[in-house]
Amino acid sequence: MDPSRWLLLHRSVRFGDTDAAGVMHFHQLLRWCHEAYEESLEAFGISAAAIFPTPSWTPETRDKSDSSQAKVALPIVHCRADFLAPLVCGDPLAIALAPRRLTSGSFEVSYSFACLDGASRPVARGLTRHVAIDPLSRLRCNLPSAIEGWLEASANGEPSPPSTQG
Amino acid sequence: MDPSRWLLLHRSVRFGDTDAAGVMHFHQLLRWCHEAYEESLEAFGISAAAIFPTPSWTPETRDKSDSSQAKVALPIVHCRADFLAPLVCGDPLAIALAPRRLTSGSFEVSYSFACLDGASRPVARGLTRHVAIDPLSRLRCNLPSAIEGWLEASANGEPSPPSTQG
Amino acid sequence: MDPSRWLLLHRSVRFGDTDAAGVMHFHQLLRWCHEAYEESLEAFGISAAAIFPTPSWTPETRDKSDSSQAKVALPIVHCRADFLAPLVCGDPLAIALAPRRLTSGSFEVSYSFACLDGASRPVARGLTRHVAIDPLSRLRCNLPSAIEGWLEASANGEPSPPSTQG
Amino acid sequence: MDPSRWLLLHRSVRFGDTDAAGVMHFHQLLRWCHEAYEESLEAFGISAAAIFPTPSWTPETRDKSDSSQAKVALPIVHCRADFLAPLVCGDPLAIALAPRRLTSGSFEVSYSFACLDGASRPVARGLTRHVAIDPLSRLRCNLPSAIEGWLEASANGEPSPPSTQG
Repeated sequence: MDPSRWLLLHRSVRFGDTDAAGVMHFHQLLRWCHEAYEESLEAFGISAAAIFPTPSWTPETRDKSDSSQAKVALPIVHCRADFLAPLVCGDPLAIALAPRRLTSGSFEVSYSFACLDGASRPVARGLTRHVAIDPLSRLRCNLPSAIEGWLEASANGEPSPPSTQG
Repeated sequence: MDPSRWLLLHRSVRFGDTDAAGVMHFHQLLRWCHEAYEESLEAFGISAAAIFPTPSWTPETRDKSDSSQAKVALPIVHCRADFLAPLVCGDPLAIALAPRRLTSGSFEVSYSFACLDGASRPVARGLTRHVAIDPLSRLRCNLPSAIEGWLEASANGEPSPPSTQG
Repeated sequence: MDPSRWLLLHRSVRFGDTDAAGVMHFHQLLRWCHEAYEESLEAFGISAAAIFPTPSWTPETRDKSDSSQAKVALPIVHCRADFLAPLVCGDPLAIALAPRRLTSGSFEVSYSFACLDGASRPVARGLTRHVAIDPLSRLRCNLPSAIEGWLEASANGEPSPPSTQG
Repeated sequence: MDPSRWLLLHRSVRFGDTDAAGVMHFHQLLRWCHEAYEESLEAFGISAAAIFPTPSWTPETRDKSDSSQAKVALPIVHCRADFLAPLVCGDPLAIALAPRRLTSGSFEVSYSFACLDGASRPVARGLTRHVAIDPLSRLRCNLPSAIEGWLEASANGEPSPPSTQG
C-alpha cells in the first residue's frame, strides 16, 4: 500500500476559518492537524471507534468483548505551529504527515502544509505529541497495537528525517 | 435573589469570532448561546458537574452515590438564530436569557443579544431547545430537579411572554 | 452536469466535533452547513474569491478590474437546525443541499444530513438564509450572477419541494 | 495601575470546549490564549479597533484620519502549548499573561493556566509570537505604540524571567 494514500491529504481553507484580517485564524491550523491525523488513521484502515472514545450506548461499545473498542486514550501533551504565509478563503492545501514513534507509550506527528495555487509552496507547519494512558487510572501505558502498525508503516514508507522543528 | 444576576450576562466579540467579511461569523452566536446557558446555571448555583457529563475518574464521578453527578443528559434537538446587525471585534454585548419549561421532559432558552456601544441596540436572537434523556438507554425522562428549580425561579423573576420567534 | 455532483457532499464526524456527552456538539452542524455551501459552489465552478471577501493584497483583489472579485456580501440573517439522532466520532455523513431563491436579493439553503453506517438514516437538518448587500453601504442589492446561476441549475436538477421546515 | 488587573484573567471550561474523552479538546487552549490577549489589551485601556482590523463601514474606520484605526497587523508566526493535566467542564481557570518585547517589530506572550478547584495547580502553558506588518504591503514594520506601552507596563509590573519554554 502506497503510504502517500494515508500520509498526504487535502483540504481547502473555508470562510469560517478566516478572521477580520482576511486570513486563516491561527488556531484553526491545529484543528486541521488533528482532523488530518484522524483522516490518516481512517485511510490506513483504523476505525475511529478503535482509537477515540465513544459513548457506552453505541453498538461498538455495548459489546464489551469487542477488541475494536478504545481501551487506551492518546491525549496531546504538546503542540505547536509555525505560520509561514497567510492563507485566504478557498486556498487549496496539501497536508503531508510524518508520524514518529517516540517511546513505547508516546508518538508525535509533524504536519507540513503547502498551498497548491500555482506552484506548491510551504505555508505552515504543525506538530502534535501524544502519550498513551489508561482512560480510567490516567496512568501511562503502551501505545495501542493499531497505532504501532500505523507508525511502523508510515516510517517504512517515508523515513522520518531528524526533526528540525524543536 | 435578583433573577438578572443569572439571566443577564455579558461578553465581548473576540477576533477569532470574526471572518474575512470583518464581522462575527454566524455560528459563533450559537456557541455564545450555550456558554451563556452554562454561565446562567453557574450563577444560579448549579455546578457544571450536576448537569454536564464528566469523566469517570473525576472526584465527582468516582463517588457513585454522589447525587451531584449528572444522571440525565439534556441534548439540544432544535436551535435557531436571527441576525439583526453585524458585530465587529470588540463589540460589548449584553445577553438576556429567557428559559421556559415546555413539558416535564423539555425546555427551551431564548437569548436576546444587545450591543452596548452607545445606546443598547438589539443585534441578534438565538434559541436552544433541550430534551431530557437517560444517557444510557437514550429514552426520554423527566428534567433534573436542579433544572426545574432554575426554570421556575427564572419564570417567576421574569414571566416569559408568549414566544414570538417561531 | 449532474446536480448531485455539487448538491450531495460527504464528510465524517471528527473527534473535535464531539463533546463530553460523547456526541457531536450541536453548533458544529451549522459550521458543517456553511462548509458544505462553500464546497457546493466550488464543485459547481464558482471560485471562493468570486463570492467571499479576500484581503486587498491578494492577486485577485489587487487587479481592481477583475470581475471575479466579490462585490456583494451574502450575510446570513437566519439559521436553524434540527437534531434527530446523536452522531459519534467517525460517523460517515452524506449532506444533501437544496438551495432555493427567495427574492432577487435573497436565498436559502436547506441541508439534510444522513448517516451512512449501515442503511442511510436521517440524522439532522439545517438551514441558512442569506441576503445580498453592498459591503460598503450595507444596503440590500441583487444576488451576484454566479449565485443566480447556481440557484437555477440546482432548482432544475432537483426541483425544491415546498419547504416543510418552517 | 496594578498590572494584575490586565495580566491575570479568569474563565471557566465550557461544555463545547470538551471532547468525547470528557476533557478540554487541545486546540481550544490556543483560542483561550488569544482571547486572554485581547481581554488584557482591553483591560489595559487599548480598544479592539486600535489593534484589530475592522470593516471600512464602521465609524472608527470611516474617518480615515482617526488615529485609533489599526494601521499595523500583528499576525501570529508561531504558537505552542503544553498540557499538564486534563480539564473538565466547569473547571475555573486563572490565566497569567507574561508579554515580552522581542524586537522593534515583534513580541510574544506566555500564558500560564492554573485550575482553581481547591488549591491552585498548574494545568497548561501556551505561547503566541507576533510580528508587526503593514497590512497592505505585508512588509515588516515597527510595533504600534499602544502595544509598546502595554509591553513596557507589563514588563515593569512583573519582570519577565528568562523564558524556559523554548
